[in-house]
Amino acid sequence: MPSTTIAPHAELTTLVNVFTVDPARQRELVEILTGATQKVMQYREGFISANIHASTDGTRVLNYAQWSSTDAYQAMLDDPECREHMSEAAALATFDPHVYTVESIHHT
Amino acid sequence: MPSTTIAPHAELTTLVNVFTVDPARQRELVEILTGATQKVMQYREGFISANIHASTDGTRVLNYAQWSSTDAYQAMLDDPECREHMSEAAALATFDPHVYTVESIHHT
Repeated sequence: MPSTTIAPHAELTTLVNVFTVDPARQRELVEILTGATQKVMQYREGFISANIHASTDGTRVLNYAQWSSTDAYQAMLDDPECREHMSEAAALATFDPHVYTVESIHHT
Repeated sequence: MPSTTIAPHAELTTLVNVFTVDPARQRELVEILTGATQKVMQYREGFISANIHASTDGTRVLNYAQWSSTDAYQAMLDDPECREHMSEAAALATFDPHVYTVESIHHT
């Protein structure tokens, strides 16, 4: 079973996109993002991982994604095939993407 | 070096809290959340991990946290000492916490 690792000071770019969605369409949005990742995004240069989450209250979908660099993420954003998939998602939801650094992690 | 694992269908509760903050106070908010986790949260029953992120544009701080169950997370929210730390953070930022399930993960 594959899994994703979060570690501080890793040599990668973390992109978290939070989608706000009508709960009636949350499932559809999860499927669009999963399909776009499987068909297109995961084959793009610099893709490391995508981790698609659904909020239990139905109102959010969150993609915790990792790319090798900000340039690789930017190249994906500029790619016409990727843009087409993103616009499918955008038709269903508002979204708020930001690039993050991992500042600290804490475990028991 | 400790690290955090994201896996689908894991037996845990994922809580992502996105804080919107004045960039001039982003660093202070990261320190408040890191301190609260080190002093209080990580000793609470059911705590698994906290992963504190800062957006490169300065406007967001994100905590990707894992708890053993929704009840454990709720007990933390109701704990007076935890509430005191949360109100310190709330004085600096608006926040939008949601409980999530991991729907799918994708890797190269």
